[in-house]
Amino acid sequence: MSPDIETLIQKISRLPGLGPRSARRIVIHLIRNREQSLEPMLMSMDNVYKNIKVCPVCSNIDTFADVCSICSDNKRRRDIICVVESIANLWAIEKTSCFTGQYHVLKGLLSSIDGQGPEFLMLEELQKRCDENHISEIIIALSATVEGQTTDHYIKNFFKNKNIKITSLAHGIPIGGELDYLDDGTLFAAFSARG
Amino acid sequence: MSPDIETLIQKISRLPGLGPRSARRIVIHLIRNREQSLEPMLMSMDNVYKNIKVCPVCSNIDTFADVCSICSDNKRRRDIICVVESIANLWAIEKTSCFTGQYHVLKGLLSSIDGQGPEFLMLEELQKRCDENHISEIIIALSATVEGQTTDHYIKNFFKNKNIKITSLAHGIPIGGELDYLDDGTLFAAFSARG
Repeated sequence: MSPDIETLIQKISRLPGLGPRSARRIVIHLIRNREQSLEPMLMSMDNVYKNIKVCPVCSNIDTFADVCSICSDNKRRRDIICVVESIANLWAIEKTSCFTGQYHVLKGLLSSIDGQGPEFLMLEELQKRCDENHISEIIIALSATVEGQTTDHYIKNFFKNKNIKITSLAHGIPIGGELDYLDDGTLFAAFSARG
Repeated sequence: MSPDIETLIQKISRLPGLGPRSARRIVIHLIRNREQSLEPMLMSMDNVYKNIKVCPVCSNIDTFADVCSICSDNKRRRDIICVVESIANLWAIEKTSCFTGQYHVLKGLLSSIDGQGPEFLMLEELQKRCDENHISEIIIALSATVEGQTTDHYIKNFFKNKNIKITSLAHGIPIGGELDYLDDGTLFAAFSARG
């Protein structure tokens, strides 16, 4: 195998969810379909490489514009900010179109294991945004994991005496979930939050 | 999500073994690691794109050289040719280093469903190679599937009266395989070929 191809296989095998075997399959597919697959892939990747920018307002990632398309969209509500852990979660929320406000993307959750302290939350920036614009509500939309809930508490505590309404996503039975397959924690949360 | 990023996700999700979810994960990884992952990936892919060539002798794929590194390697045996279905299989055989001869890579197996006839086997070219060089043996190393075995038979038939030794890979119990988990076909083959 030529060193060029071997290098590409190695690089692809380091992507999340892939290994040497799947990387080899992908490279063979790309090589076999040089015009239909490899060339467009290359151009598309180059586009993203050249154009990605981190939005200075919400830390979302976008191409072309300096301020991301969500922050600059005039049709979206400007008085409500949703705190998410990552762009992946932002995309997931955007896909449902259930939220039409602004975002605040964290650099990561609080995690003593990974050495991620409060500076990852950029709460001063968020505070500044709240002061400059009239923000009526901050929605904390973090995962229901230990790190997620710790971060949720920390953010709530930070904004405690600052006269801003802070809410978190509800915990309960997921739609389509069967009661007898749910874990105790979820059932407990669903009971406590019944209404 | 920006259209550039969306296009890249779409392109990656069409690769074998990937879907929209894993493609999104990969793109987020690439974007987050622009310098350490996206840039080297782009360069490596560009290298392969610019340099891949199909070897005119054996149809192997290589970079830089016109004739592939296997065909031009003087340390390898020149009197023995191994017929394989694809470069993936060639790479698999090369990894074991159990074969040091030349290759003949088919364009595909005989398959009436996929409309692949004898022209995919390029047997005239193989015949020509045999006539021009002194080939003592052709090893047919195809999968033990219906298509593989049909193609195996076809190639054997093609070379029947041409005074070249033709062999196929042995069928039997795979190393590490437990007898009681084997299918009937494999057990039958292992019994017939006992020795």
